[in-house]
Parts: sequence; structure tokens; C-alpha cells
Amino acid sequence: MIDTILDHRTIRKYKNTPVEKEIINDLIKAGTRASTTGNMQLYSIIITTDEENKKRLAPSHFNQSMITEAPLLMTFCADFNRFNKWCELRKAKPGYDNFLSFTTAAIDAIIVAQNVALAAEDKGLGICYLGTTTYMAKNIIEILNLPKGVVPVTTLTIGYPGEDPSLVDRLPLEAVSHYESYKDYTPEVIDNLYREKESLDEYKEFIKENNKETLAQVFTDVRYKKEDNVSFSKLFLSVLEDQGFMNQ
Amino acid sequence: MIDTILDHRTIRKYKNTPVEKEIINDLIKAGTRASTTGNMQLYSIIITTDEENKKRLAPSHFNQSMITEAPLLMTFCADFNRFNKWCELRKAKPGYDNFLSFTTAAIDAIIVAQNVALAAEDKGLGICYLGTTTYMAKNIIEILNLPKGVVPVTTLTIGYPGEDPSLVDRLPLEAVSHYESYKDYTPEVIDNLYREKESLDEYKEFIKENNKETLAQVFTDVRYKKEDNVSFSKLFLSVLEDQGFMNQ
Repeated sequence: MIDTILDHRTIRKYKNTPVEKEIINDLIKAGTRASTTGNMQLYSIIITTDEENKKRLAPSHFNQSMITEAPLLMTFCADFNRFNKWCELRKAKPGYDNFLSFTTAAIDAIIVAQNVALAAEDKGLGICYLGTTTYMAKNIIEILNLPKGVVPVTTLTIGYPGEDPSLVDRLPLEAVSHYESYKDYTPEVIDNLYREKESLDEYKEFIKENNKETLAQVFTDVRYKKEDNVSFSKLFLSVLEDQGFMNQ
Repeated sequence: MIDTILDHRTIRKYKNTPVEKEIINDLIKAGTRASTTGNMQLYSIIITTDEENKKRLAPSHFNQSMITEAPLLMTFCADFNRFNKWCELRKAKPGYDNFLSFTTAAIDAIIVAQNVALAAEDKGLGICYLGTTTYMAKNIIEILNLPKGVVPVTTLTIGYPGEDPSLVDRLPLEAVSHYESYKDYTPEVIDNLYREKESLDEYKEFIKENNKETLAQVFTDVRYKKEDNVSFSKLFLSVLEDQGFMNQ
């Protein structure tokens, strides 16, 4: 278990082998054993294996080649629709059309996704998370036919690995952990925490390829730009509104 | 691994035994191996073991007894503060003061939390997720001294189990999984999916204790009420504003 966690690598190239139906079932089962708020199970998983449907989803994930190459996609959704329908059929008046309820359901869905990811890796499959899911939620809602009360929050591509990448660097543990209360970072501390990362050849190459002066500039000017973040923020907030989660 | 996932039970009673420092370290390490957007590691973990600090946090978690009884609390935060500080020290202009960036960091933090939860369970520890973290984020920010750019999104209580509860029911797998596109639920389907749950003696008892007619009413009228959700929604949105994530 802990080995599966420690050995995680993101896999972006997959073999052509389909993922067996029973394994897909095992993955869903692993998802459903996750902690869930009040045992309400405020999530749904949309399973995509059909080639045409993968092609329809690809533009929502910026046409990264793994979307159509992976034999299996799972889109994890915050879902209050099922719970609301149950309430209405049981003389109960649901009050879950607000931002807190979306947050609760989104957390439920992400915990499920990580259970599925680890169960997949434990079975020799490889996975990649697609952050594009929240950026392009509006399009994904249309393609997957998601009703009010349902919002996609993340996607996994899943398949047998067609590559064997090495473990990716991480900041030292003290960068992300604070004992008893948050100790804010001085410039000296930041320098120390990022020194190893900044010394790696792959990042030096990355800076050169992108014609930038620092690694941080590759993030701010190329990969995660303010103008994109702002426009996707507006879009995602309008999706929450449309899906009925902004009535507070 | 898959056994740890399938055997998960929420543990609310703990032995008095502290969690060893090396184990806490192993848990943090397991957290950092999780998938993270662009390898930015947009999260921080606040570790609480001090009795006085647990008492200070307890009201934010509605004074549930496990908060002070568990030897270890971990509060998982969406954190753009560290990344922003690094950008600013590297002549890069961060554009992450918006809702999409909060969502991205919150997803990062929740994936880390589930890695920590499973690593803990794999080591014989028990865990409980505290959904109260988003409800009471404002108070937690004060207590843990969280700067702008940091928002708590979930908390785990962790310790050696002082109880051995049985596995909790879940809806059938077909309730949460949709092949190729979302199939909305008809009343007949809802009846079928919830039949087993509604037949369980513990829930019948629960309805009686709460003087309600249906299980759904226990949720809507007692446990997760509209008025609370609405007021906590407003509070959480104001926290996002205060912490600098609503400038889109």
C-alpha cells in the first residue's frame, strides 16, 4: 500500500490493451469505500471507453494525446442530483443548492478519485490526472449529459503503462509541513526549499526551451498564465451558477 | 493496498498512545508523493499534537470529542502563498489570486489528504475526516495563523483505534457509475438504489431517534440543514475573498 503511494509516477503513454470490465468494477468499488460526508456519497463517476466519446472529450482536455490513447477515462463529478431526487421522493426538502454543498460534494469526489487512482496503480495500471476538467467543465457537462446538481471536478486517464518514467522531484518535507501553526516563508527559507529543484538539469533545459530567465517565469508566463486563470475562473463560477450551486 | 482501501472504517475513538514522530514524517512523505498540478505542490499540512492547540481547534469542529482525544490532527490547506512568494523572488508575476487557482490548490490538498489517510490506515492507525473544516475555515485560519493565499479544506484526526466498527453500507456500484454518459435517475431507479440502505435497522432507529418520517428528512431537517448550508456558504465565500482568491 505505502509502496504503491511512494512509487506513484504519472503515466501519459499507454499500451493498446483495454482495461477489463471486472477491473473497472474493482476500481469503482475501491472508490465507493472512500470516506464520504455523512455517508451521502455525493459523487458520480462517468466511465468512457468508447473511441468516439474519447474523441468528443479530447478538445475539453486541450487535445492531449493521452485522452484518445488511454483505453479508459473516468470523469469524477460532484453530484447532489441523486441525493436531491431521493430527498424529494421521501418528503424531504433538500437545501443543497449552495456553494458549501458544492464544496462538500467536490471533496467527496476527489477522495474517490484518489482511491481509484491508487487501486489502479496497485493493479499495474498507470494514471494521469487532468486538471483541465475544471477549466472546461461547461463543455464536459454538455458532452457527458450532466444534469443540474452535477459538476465534473477531475478526470483520470487509465491504462497499462507504455512508458516507465522516473520518480519526479518534490520539495523537501519541511516545505509543506508546519508544526502547530503556519510559519510563513522568508526569502532565505524559499531559497533553501527551492534550491534542489532549481539545480535540476531538466528544469534548466525547460527554462531555455521556453526562452525564460527563471523556472518560476515558465509557470507564470507560459504554463499557468493569469489571463487564462481569470477567464477559466469566470467560466467555472458560471458553471456553478448554471448547475444550481450559487443560491446562497 | 487494495485491502487497506476496501477495509476503510472511520475511527472516532482513539487510544491514548501518541503517534511517533517518524510515523508522522512517513505520512507527510506519502502525502507529497500524490499527483499535484504541474508539480507545484499547492498545499500545506498543519500538524497539531499539542493539547492546548487541540482545545483551541475543537470549537471549530463543533467540539466533537475526537478532536481533543485523537493524538494527532492534520489540517490540509490549499496553499498558493509559498508558490507566490517563490515567483516574486524569481522575477515572475504570479496570477493566482482567482477562484480557479483556489480550486486547483484545493484539489491538490485533498489528494494529499487521501494519501495520508491511506498511509495511516496501512500503518494500523485510524482516521476521521472533518467536514467542519470548510464551515469554520475563518476561525481555523485565525487559530493556525494562515496567511493570504492559504485556505484550510479538510482535517484528519489520526490515532491508534480505540474502537473496531463494522464496515458501513454503501449504495450499489451502479448508483454512482455511469457508462459513456450520465443516465438521470427515475423515481423507480432511486427506489431500487436506496432500498437496501432504507431497510437497515440502524437507519430505522435513527429515524425514530430524530422523530422523523423518512431517513432523507434526518439529513434535510437535522444533519445538513438549508439554513446552515446557506450561512456557511456565505462565510466560506467571504473567506476565499479575504484570502485573496476572488480577484477574477
